[in-house]
Amino acid sequence: MLSRVRSAVAHLVSSGGAPPAGPKSPDQPEAASLLPAVPPEAPGSPPAKAGSASGSAAAPAKAAEARASFSRPTFLQLSPAGLRRADDHAGRAVQSPPDTGRRLPWSTGYAEVINAGKSRHNEDQACCEVVYVEGRRSGSGAPREPGPGQGLCFYYWGLFDGHAGGGAAEMASRLLHRHIREQLKDLVEILQDPSPPPLCLPSTPGTPASSDPPHLVGPHSCWPSQKEVTHESLVVGAIESAFQLMDEQMAQERHGHQVEGGCCALVVVYLLGKMYVANAGDSRAIIVRNGEIIPMSREFTPETERQRLQLLGFLKPELLGGEFTHLEFPRRVQPKELGQRMLYRDQNMTGWAYKHIQLEDLRFPLVCGEGKKARVMATIGVTRGLGDHNLRVCSSSLPIKPFLSCFPEVRVYDLTQYEHCPDDVLVLGTDGLWDVTSDTEAAATVDRVLSTYEPNDPSRYTALAQALVLGARGTPRDRGWRLPNNKLGSGDDISVFVIPLGGPGSYS
Amino acid sequence: MLSRVRSAVAHLVSSGGAPPAGPKSPDQPEAASLLPAVPPEAPGSPPAKAGSASGSAAAPAKAAEARASFSRPTFLQLSPAGLRRADDHAGRAVQSPPDTGRRLPWSTGYAEVINAGKSRHNEDQACCEVVYVEGRRSGSGAPREPGPGQGLCFYYWGLFDGHAGGGAAEMASRLLHRHIREQLKDLVEILQDPSPPPLCLPSTPGTPASSDPPHLVGPHSCWPSQKEVTHESLVVGAIESAFQLMDEQMAQERHGHQVEGGCCALVVVYLLGKMYVANAGDSRAIIVRNGEIIPMSREFTPETERQRLQLLGFLKPELLGGEFTHLEFPRRVQPKELGQRMLYRDQNMTGWAYKHIQLEDLRFPLVCGEGKKARVMATIGVTRGLGDHNLRVCSSSLPIKPFLSCFPEVRVYDLTQYEHCPDDVLVLGTDGLWDVTSDTEAAATVDRVLSTYEPNDPSRYTALAQALVLGARGTPRDRGWRLPNNKLGSGDDISVFVIPLGGPGSYS
Repeated sequence: MLSRVRSAVAHLVSSGGAPPAGPKSPDQPEAASLLPAVPPEAPGSPPAKAGSASGSAAAPAKAAEARASFSRPTFLQLSPAGLRRADDHAGRAVQSPPDTGRRLPWSTGYAEVINAGKSRHNEDQACCEVVYVEGRRSGSGAPREPGPGQGLCFYYWGLFDGHAGGGAAEMASRLLHRHIREQLKDLVEILQDPSPPPLCLPSTPGTPASSDPPHLVGPHSCWPSQKEVTHESLVVGAIESAFQLMDEQMAQERHGHQVEGGCCALVVVYLLGKMYVANAGDSRAIIVRNGEIIPMSREFTPETERQRLQLLGFLKPELLGGEFTHLEFPRRVQPKELGQRMLYRDQNMTGWAYKHIQLEDLRFPLVCGEGKKARVMATIGVTRGLGDHNLRVCSSSLPIKPFLSCFPEVRVYDLTQYEHCPDDVLVLGTDGLWDVTSDTEAAATVDRVLSTYEPNDPSRYTALAQALVLGARGTPRDRGWRLPNNKLGSGDDISVFVIPLGGPGSYS
Repeated sequence: MLSRVRSAVAHLVSSGGAPPAGPKSPDQPEAASLLPAVPPEAPGSPPAKAGSASGSAAAPAKAAEARASFSRPTFLQLSPAGLRRADDHAGRAVQSPPDTGRRLPWSTGYAEVINAGKSRHNEDQACCEVVYVEGRRSGSGAPREPGPGQGLCFYYWGLFDGHAGGGAAEMASRLLHRHIREQLKDLVEILQDPSPPPLCLPSTPGTPASSDPPHLVGPHSCWPSQKEVTHESLVVGAIESAFQLMDEQMAQERHGHQVEGGCCALVVVYLLGKMYVANAGDSRAIIVRNGEIIPMSREFTPETERQRLQLLGFLKPELLGGEFTHLEFPRRVQPKELGQRMLYRDQNMTGWAYKHIQLEDLRFPLVCGEGKKARVMATIGVTRGLGDHNLRVCSSSLPIKPFLSCFPEVRVYDLTQYEHCPDDVLVLGTDGLWDVTSDTEAAATVDRVLSTYEPNDPSRYTALAQALVLGARGTPRDRGWRLPNNKLGSGDDISVFVIPLGGPGSYS
C-alpha cells in the first residue's frame, strides 16, 4: 500500500520540486514549484478550525508573508478591484460568476462570501471543471476529442474549506481533480465495457488492459469463491485513492513550506450517469428533489469520529505522548477527584458508566468538548481532510496528523433512476452555510427562489446560491451580522454550489 | 478500564471457582463451580459459525463429554420425554412454553426448533425474566418489594446463538441479566431522580450517591464546559459494561474448561418506559408497528465489520502472525500473479483499486468470502459476541479472539412516544430465522397470524412465534426441509421471541 503511494507520488511530483523537463503534460498534476506562495494567516487571528494549533513551519510561513498572494476561484473572473472587494471583511459582498461570461457546466450556481474577520483571507476555495480522461492505451500525446472506446469525460465540483492557513485548500482546488483523472486513466476501457471488471491486470499499464483477461486471471477463474466487483466501486476506489495521493503530495511539499494548514474537501464527480459525492470534513451535500431532502454526506468531527479516535489512542498509546488519555469524561477531571468515581466512555462504549479516577485520568482527554467546540487534542475541530501535516499540539511537539484521516466517505446517486425536474438540485456548502442553516431551511429556500424564475432561466441556480449565502451571512446590525430572527449569522467563510439535476444543460 | 473489569470480576466470581461462603446471595451472578458441564459438540460436525475452528481445550472438552448435559430454557418446562423430543434432529418439533402453565411476562410468545443435524444439540439458548434491582443503599439483605426510592424492576429477554459448543450460550442465558442488574445497582437512585446524573460520585458505593452532588462535584460545577449525560445513556453504558463483564467471566472460567465456544447475544431490557435492544452478533430484532418495519439491530459479520478488522490487523500486525494479510482481495491471490495488478481494498476503502501483487499479498486474507460464507481468519463468520476465548486458527496457534468484540450496539425505543395496539410487536430471532425470512415476510406473518386471533387472546404471540419458526424450518420433502416455494428451509437452530408492545399485560 505504502509503496504504491510512494511510487505513484514520485510519478506525479517531479523530484526535488523542480518543474518537469520539457513542456508540462496536461495529464500531470502540477509540481511543487509551480504553486503560488501560500497566503499566511492574519497575525493574531485563530485558525478557522484549530483552537490553539501551532505549525512547526510557522516562522518560515510568516517570513513568506510578504510574497503571499490571495486567490479566488478563476471562474469568478475577478478583476483586481473585484478581488479587493471579495477580500473585504467589512462589506462581505457576495461573489458569483458574472452573468455575462461563460456559464459553469450544467448552469451550476455558485456564491461565496468572506468571513467576518476570523482569518485574513477567505480560506474556502472552489473548483468546477469538465475533465477529459484519456485511457493509458492512447499514449501520452495531446488529448483527443472524446469518443467511444477512446476516453471518458467527468464533471467535477469541489469545495475546500481551509484552516490554519489557506495553502492546502488552494492546492487541493487546483490539483485534486487531476489526481482523480490520473486514477481513472487505468479504468477508461474497463468502465466502458459492460462485462465485470477484470480482477487482475497485466503489470504494465500501457498494454491492453482487458484483451482477454477472463482466460488469464479474470472473473470466471475456477477459484471456488470470488467477489463481484462493480464498475461503481472502481470509481469509488479511484476517488479514495486520489484523496490519499493528494494528501501525500501535500506531505511531500510541506518541507518547502509551500503547503500551510489543512482543508476539508467535498467533491462531486458525475461520471456515466452517476453522481459520486465524496466528503472528508464538515462540509455538507444534500439533494433537494421534489421538496424531499436526501442527505448525500455526513460530517466528520471529534464527536462523530470519537470511537475511531479513541481506538487509535488505545491501540497506539505512544501517539498520546503521555499527555492525553484516550478516555472521554464529561468534563476535565480535577486532581481532588482522585479515587472518586466519574462518568467516562471508552472506545467501545456509546453509553456512559462510572469509573474510579486514577492518576492517568488527570491527563487531558484526546477528545473533548461539544458541537462546534469539540476538539481533538484540544486543537482541531474536524477529523478528516487534506493537509495538516505540520499541525502539532500547542506548546508540544506531539503531531495531530496521525489521528486525522484523508479518506472521504463516498455516496453514489444514480441520476438515471429518477426523472428530475429543473427544481431538483444538489446543494454543496461549507460549514459556514450549515452552521446557521438547517437542511429544511435550505430546502425551503430552494423552493422559494426557484419558483420565482422560469424553469429554463439558467441564472436561477446562481440566484439560489446567492440567496443561501445571504441567508447564512445575514445583514450588519447591532454590532454583528444578524439573521432576520436577530440571531447571529455565520461569521465564517461561506461557499455554496447549486447543481441542477434536471435543469438546462445537465447531462450534456 | 481493565482494572475496573478485573476487580469487578473478582467481586463477581469467587476465587478458584469455589461456591461463595454462606448462603448464595441472589444479587451475585453464579460462580463457576455452579455451572453445569458444557455439552460438547457432536463428533465430526462443524461448529455452527466456525469454518475450521479448533479449540485449544478440545481434548479436555471431549473428555468431559460423558458428563455433558443438554439443557433447554426452563420456561419451556420440558419433561424428560419433552427434552428428548426437543433434541430430535429428525422430527424437529417446534417447542413453546405450555399453554397451561404460567405465561411469560407481557404474554411474550416464544418458539424454537433444533437444527437439522449441524450440531449435536440445539446451541441456541433463551432467557425471559423480570429482574428486581435493589439500590446499593438498601444493603445486601433479601430483596424487598419494589417501591418509590427503593429499587427498580426491569423486564428482560435474551437470545443466545452458540457456536463451536453450547457452553457460552448456556452460561450467558443464565448470567448476563445478573451482570446487567449488578451494573444498574449503582444507578437505582440516579435513574429515579429527574435531575441530570451526577458526573462524579463518592468512592464508596454504599454511601448515599447524590445527597448533594451539585455542591461537591456535580453537573453545575463552574468548569467551563461539560457534557450533558442522559439517564438513557447510563442504562446503555450499564448494558455495555455487563456484556464486557460477562465475556471476562467466561475468560476466567475457560481455564476450568467450563466454557466452550462462543455465542451471539441479542437482549432486550425494558426499563422506565424504554426498550433497550442490545445486539452482539448476527441475530436480529425488528419492530412491526401498524405494518411498518422498524429495524432495531444490525448484524456484525466479517463483511459488515471488515474495516474495523482490517484496521486492527494494520495497526497490530503481530495479530496476523505472518500468516494473514490485512488487505482484502476479491479472491485468493495465486503465486503466478506476483507482479501483476489485482483489485484490493484496505481498511480505509469502500471501493476497489488495483495494486501490484507482492509476496506478502500471497498470505491468506484476514477477511474473505461473502454472505454466510464470509470468515475472519478462515474460521469464524460472526465478529461480535461472548466467549470464543479458546478459538484459534485451524492448525495454528493464532488466537482469533483479539478480532472479536464483545460489545453490543444498543438501540433505544421509547414506548411512551406512540400509542401501541395489540398487533404491534418486537420480534427477536436468531439467524436461523432471518437466513430464510426477510423483514417483509416476517411482517406479513405478523399480520396474517395476529388477525386470526382476538386482540386480547394472550396465546396469539406464541402462535405467531411458532408460525415464524415453522415458516423458516419448512417441512421435510425431497430429502430436505423445504419451504412452500420448494427452496431449502433453515437447517440451523431457530429461536424466536415475540414481545407485544401494546398487548395484554405489557407495561405491567
